[in-house]
Amino acid sequence: MNLDRGTAVIGPVLVIGTGLIGTSIALALKRADVEVFLEDTDPSQLATAMAAGAGLVFQEEVIPKLVVVAVPPRYAGVVLAQASERFSEATITDVTSVKAQVLAAAVDQGADPRRLIGGHPMAGREVAGAAGARGDLLDDRLWVLTPSELTTVDHLRQAYQLVSTCGAYAVEMTPDEHDRAVALVSHTPQLLSSVLAAQLADASSDYVRIAGQGLRDMTRIAASDSALWTDILSVNAKQVAEVLSNVVNDLTETLAALQAIAAGDASQTSRLSSALQTGAVGRSRIPGKHGAEQIEIAIVGVMLADKPGELARLFTGAGEANINLEDVRIEHVLGRPSGLVEISVRPDKVETLASALRDRSFDVRI
Amino acid sequence: MNLDRGTAVIGPVLVIGTGLIGTSIALALKRADVEVFLEDTDPSQLATAMAAGAGLVFQEEVIPKLVVVAVPPRYAGVVLAQASERFSEATITDVTSVKAQVLAAAVDQGADPRRLIGGHPMAGREVAGAAGARGDLLDDRLWVLTPSELTTVDHLRQAYQLVSTCGAYAVEMTPDEHDRAVALVSHTPQLLSSVLAAQLADASSDYVRIAGQGLRDMTRIAASDSALWTDILSVNAKQVAEVLSNVVNDLTETLAALQAIAAGDASQTSRLSSALQTGAVGRSRIPGKHGAEQIEIAIVGVMLADKPGELARLFTGAGEANINLEDVRIEHVLGRPSGLVEISVRPDKVETLASALRDRSFDVRI
Repeated sequence: MNLDRGTAVIGPVLVIGTGLIGTSIALALKRADVEVFLEDTDPSQLATAMAAGAGLVFQEEVIPKLVVVAVPPRYAGVVLAQASERFSEATITDVTSVKAQVLAAAVDQGADPRRLIGGHPMAGREVAGAAGARGDLLDDRLWVLTPSELTTVDHLRQAYQLVSTCGAYAVEMTPDEHDRAVALVSHTPQLLSSVLAAQLADASSDYVRIAGQGLRDMTRIAASDSALWTDILSVNAKQVAEVLSNVVNDLTETLAALQAIAAGDASQTSRLSSALQTGAVGRSRIPGKHGAEQIEIAIVGVMLADKPGELARLFTGAGEANINLEDVRIEHVLGRPSGLVEISVRPDKVETLASALRDRSFDVRI
Repeated sequence: MNLDRGTAVIGPVLVIGTGLIGTSIALALKRADVEVFLEDTDPSQLATAMAAGAGLVFQEEVIPKLVVVAVPPRYAGVVLAQASERFSEATITDVTSVKAQVLAAAVDQGADPRRLIGGHPMAGREVAGAAGARGDLLDDRLWVLTPSELTTVDHLRQAYQLVSTCGAYAVEMTPDEHDRAVALVSHTPQLLSSVLAAQLADASSDYVRIAGQGLRDMTRIAASDSALWTDILSVNAKQVAEVLSNVVNDLTETLAALQAIAAGDASQTSRLSSALQTGAVGRSRIPGKHGAEQIEIAIVGVMLADKPGELARLFTGAGEANINLEDVRIEHVLGRPSGLVEISVRPDKVETLASALRDRSFDVRI
């Protein structure tokens, strides 16, 4: 099968649902000169998307070759089925972050499985709605496709071409694999972050005040849109429950170990230690930058004054040392107008970077 | 009581335990011309600390005015008691990350409570041991002090002067308050990170591959030293168990809601939604940069080529726009040599920054 990345998706394309992802896909297609039509039950979202140049309002005489359903998970099944019925030749795909239940609902309600390919572009923003959309939102992102055994090659090719036209990279999985994967790497972490952050809701300000970077990192996603996440977690409830059940079991064991230790049974420290060690093993499995295996990294710390231009001066110094920076992290210091910037580089570049920065009078810590 | 920050601690000071924190304190005291002596049961750590200029090896004729015990939590109690007995006039303090059990053990074993002040400087590094020590490690950090009702004013003043001489800021709490606070903001988050990361240990590589920034942030601290953390968690087991027990209860309720939803009971989505909303409330309580209340922040995204000098070029552009950057985050894109840099600024600075960067041909996303 020739799934040539270079061939643009053949329009016209109909995008149903002009929220953040739908409108971003429409803009990406327009960027590639594909003819795009739009539908939304919310006239203001539709108007915003059209004003952004995402396409024209759908006209009944148009016969789309591809329909992208970009509505919330709880509506996606029925909208996919309707699209399949309305456009009897078109490839039908969606972009929801759960797949098995949505696709089963679509087929149950009459969607043609030969033309149906589930999709999930791995991208998002803090800003919801058409107003947040960008034509480059999907650039360089992974986009999971979940064709079934009944999907025909022509329709699958059309889905691949949609992905590559939007600048993204297709990864094939079964719907169940996808749902298990996102339950593990996205949905369960979201719940843990929220439940951890919830412990702070009624805590003493004095306690919260001494929070460090670890707690900040662990609760960042707890600030996400709770309505959207309620929907996502509800539709993928079975898979999330399975992962969360393992987490609860592990935490319950750890809790029992802590309680035994608190009661004087020092023999239980080995269980605690083993839980921490397994965590370190799991962490090491997350791919490094750009999907590569994790590479060895050393950190150069710089204590910075909190004033305009200091970061620029820092990175100008780093840039002139001609070193590739693997990562940058800024740790805030409570109560003082300064911050520690941690620059990650390959270990053999530490000395070069440190001396380049010291030459510019930076307070370097290695 | 006059706790003048300007008065340097009066030496000689004896630091017992020349690991990362002990040696860093010694270096900070030497920086202020305080006379420092060192002790360690490990001759190589002691030699490293002395070679770094942290002080001289302790001689029996020296009479220290202040003793800083910087040994692991499980030894701290007995070493504090010994120090109290050896130096009958000296102020005695420690730096361990748990307080109640350590201080009770010290007093049980004969430490003089009038001269004893628990301490916990809120600082650390990935690098352990004397080799990682720095005289400025404590600069601008909070340092919790836990005097008891029996602590006399002269000895408390000496502890305050130690903190300020090291460049840090003292915060007073009771030992129990301290232990509850770190159980909440540090120890329980560590366990959650480890247990979440542990779920990845045996997961399919295909699943782990689609991990995004959320999972990365939530598992970062799972890479920490498991031996040290086993020790910390064991000594603070009672307080951590209390917080963890609340977390397990909340997660168990959430799990039950998910299982009910998976079984078709849509009425349970409100429990899910409420858990997520409480998480957002808790997250909002974490102080913003520099301990200020969280300020409104907008994000300017820039898609960057992964080559030397691009970050420098970016921050030079940002610096010339004369805008204060509140935070910087680099999100890696799997499988592609590029990355999204997110720069946080005050909302009213977004347009200025974006246009300054677009003028320099950056791929700006707002």
